[in-house]
Amino acid sequence: MKTINISNNAALTSTVTTATINELQPAAMAAARTLENGDGAGNDFLGWLHLPSSIDEAQFNSIEHTARILREDCEYVIAIGIGGSYLGAKAVIEALSDNFAAYKPSKGARVLFAGNNIGEDYLHNLMDLVNGHKFGIIVISKSGTTTEPAIAFRLLKAMLEQQEGKQWAARHIVAVTDAERGALRKLATEEGYVTYIIPDNVGGRFSVLTPVGLLPIAVAGYDIRALVAGAVEMEKNGEDMMVTYAATRNALYNDGKKIEILVNFDPRLHFLAEWWKQLYGESEGKDGKGIFPASVDFTTDLHSMGQWIQDGERTIFETVLSVGDQRHAVIIPSDDADLDGLNYIAGRHVDEVNKMAELGTKLAHVDGGVPNLLITIPTLDEHCLGQLIYFFEKACGMSGYMLGVNPFNQPGVEAYKKNMFALLNKPGYEEQSAAIQAKLK
Amino acid sequence: MKTINISNNAALTSTVTTATINELQPAAMAAARTLENGDGAGNDFLGWLHLPSSIDEAQFNSIEHTARILREDCEYVIAIGIGGSYLGAKAVIEALSDNFAAYKPSKGARVLFAGNNIGEDYLHNLMDLVNGHKFGIIVISKSGTTTEPAIAFRLLKAMLEQQEGKQWAARHIVAVTDAERGALRKLATEEGYVTYIIPDNVGGRFSVLTPVGLLPIAVAGYDIRALVAGAVEMEKNGEDMMVTYAATRNALYNDGKKIEILVNFDPRLHFLAEWWKQLYGESEGKDGKGIFPASVDFTTDLHSMGQWIQDGERTIFETVLSVGDQRHAVIIPSDDADLDGLNYIAGRHVDEVNKMAELGTKLAHVDGGVPNLLITIPTLDEHCLGQLIYFFEKACGMSGYMLGVNPFNQPGVEAYKKNMFALLNKPGYEEQSAAIQAKLK
Repeated sequence: MKTINISNNAALTSTVTTATINELQPAAMAAARTLENGDGAGNDFLGWLHLPSSIDEAQFNSIEHTARILREDCEYVIAIGIGGSYLGAKAVIEALSDNFAAYKPSKGARVLFAGNNIGEDYLHNLMDLVNGHKFGIIVISKSGTTTEPAIAFRLLKAMLEQQEGKQWAARHIVAVTDAERGALRKLATEEGYVTYIIPDNVGGRFSVLTPVGLLPIAVAGYDIRALVAGAVEMEKNGEDMMVTYAATRNALYNDGKKIEILVNFDPRLHFLAEWWKQLYGESEGKDGKGIFPASVDFTTDLHSMGQWIQDGERTIFETVLSVGDQRHAVIIPSDDADLDGLNYIAGRHVDEVNKMAELGTKLAHVDGGVPNLLITIPTLDEHCLGQLIYFFEKACGMSGYMLGVNPFNQPGVEAYKKNMFALLNKPGYEEQSAAIQAKLK
Repeated sequence: MKTINISNNAALTSTVTTATINELQPAAMAAARTLENGDGAGNDFLGWLHLPSSIDEAQFNSIEHTARILREDCEYVIAIGIGGSYLGAKAVIEALSDNFAAYKPSKGARVLFAGNNIGEDYLHNLMDLVNGHKFGIIVISKSGTTTEPAIAFRLLKAMLEQQEGKQWAARHIVAVTDAERGALRKLATEEGYVTYIIPDNVGGRFSVLTPVGLLPIAVAGYDIRALVAGAVEMEKNGEDMMVTYAATRNALYNDGKKIEILVNFDPRLHFLAEWWKQLYGESEGKDGKGIFPASVDFTTDLHSMGQWIQDGERTIFETVLSVGDQRHAVIIPSDDADLDGLNYIAGRHVDEVNKMAELGTKLAHVDGGVPNLLITIPTLDEHCLGQLIYFFEKACGMSGYMLGVNPFNQPGVEAYKKNMFALLNKPGYEEQSAAIQAKLK
């Protein structure tokens, strides 16, 4: 079996040595034990920890069955969700898709995303697209009242019912929500929607391997069993890698490396980095601390952020996602005139050049004072992505405990919502409305 | 005429006051004079400074004529370029496009991008897409030998010639390159391509208003005259705004705000932020200093990076791009059951909610210790985008001079290239090849 791997050989500096990192390994291992024992902060949100190995045949069958219906009956399936109810599915689907899939015919339903912003034109453009076409909806929300997905769902549900009739709509709307409580559970029961459960003990950013992520991924035509199998492998055998990652990044942070840049050399990993940003930013960014998670797509961004990374403030380190095999072969052709001077690489795979760009960049950045962690992904498939997801999840929990924060809450996310509700005069926010209006005078 | 505007009212903190910022205004104005007088560092790269007002009728006509041919004859036009030869066109086209344009029929050629990475699958997926379809190429490279675009062009040129014949290919390949020198100029002369010039005194990241950006934007069907007219307006009347931006961000940086997050509340501005990152990161990130440029798409990323921004290390400030009017109307419908509790905003435009999210976020983040600069863009059209582009360009030159760097060079971008050439055994790199192989042992 192909397995992802991690190397921190190039993460050492004059002040962060093997010894410094080794010193933190016991803390990393203790953090893993705290997770396993469930006696740390936020321990009512540890449902993701043994989630992969707990998914049984009946759950796979059910998700695959529902996905098949949506995939076959619909031209588009709109996954409505925000944050953790969006990024995991988006990350996996993009990583597995043709780079130009949007322009090519699709074998089954195309998965689109909504409810992940409050864009009036975005929603108009989307409704214009699906108008007159068969579409389905996967609405993903614990409460059913989060503003962004609730607005999108209200609009798209009404449109679908008008377009196809209430009965067809009810058979092609799937709700992923709380087991018992909340507006969406109530509506789903009334309308007779197929539903899946977001477990109480799994926070949004750790939910990609629940139906939150698995259902849209299956609708897009990808193998959720292989994805979960990869995660199970990491659940069983990944701790050494996680210890390395958690110990190294904490050692670097303690040494003043305040920004971690997640680097890919394959544009399909762009949204994997967005998912990772939520996972780490939301888990660690609290109490006035936490590494700032950033990301770049190389070599594209070597021609934008490359200069800063090479020569700017020395407060960064890089974690590189290196993909082994490409799916297709493209050989650089020879050219008689050779005006562009590329004949020295004629006959070679394009990816060989990319790999030398990757290695050359690592050497250049390390020389420039940018420590480098390297995560190798043998091939960009479901199995390796499942490994990567679980690796990052558990290493995140460990890393957060080492930092001394509760990695499973997100109190800061409420601040803008409260202000927004007050500004919109939401019932129940009368006092805050008066206060905010007074402040704005 | 609608004009963009800037406010730094919410950028004040206990240590960065109006007085602190005012103290930097003379330096900002002096930097503007240095640019105008052309007596600062990097002064052989100031061709962008009066570029907008120098574009004449003949240049517009020529670009529009070429664009019309490509747009009408081709199903796809592939713009080949990287860095500044990619990001400006991409930013403007995305900002003006339907959010779901890729899935909808196109009135003219679709503009796609290549040569902005070294993805073997990316190129395979692209060639698979255009195989058997009429396509054109805009190849953008000063030298014609930059690795990424050179590989893409070699492959796509050969494919197009084989598919449509050399003559048709030559009439649908346009080269944007050096006036006299370089591989691409030589090839274009031999093959009889239509060509446009990248002026010697305009660096890549300042080139969007040259044919580098204008030609792909025109092919995509947008109004390059309005774009340039907006830029001319800023060239003539924008200095106060630029002084505000340059002085405020330098004051914040001096006070320990090391990361600037460019924020949008409209996903169409995602690539405008990518363009801005190159502009500022590559201009300022040198000599061990410079603000780290990051970006987020809100409200999407309030559910990922929001927690860190609200409660993480207090080393950041935000610059918000606020778009006034939406193009389309979507009203939130009423619902008898109101299970989702949204009836309090029923009958209102979706964008009204977005604006309250924006204001609520600003108040929350400022309360959380994140200074806020606000740039208002009355409407997302060519005219306002032209203003925004020139505003950011000149403010960047000023800001870089205030920081004490040469904002117009990018020495650090060469480091990875040299290593890559050595690793690939490029002729002329024999010594470096031996050295790097020894190092890797």
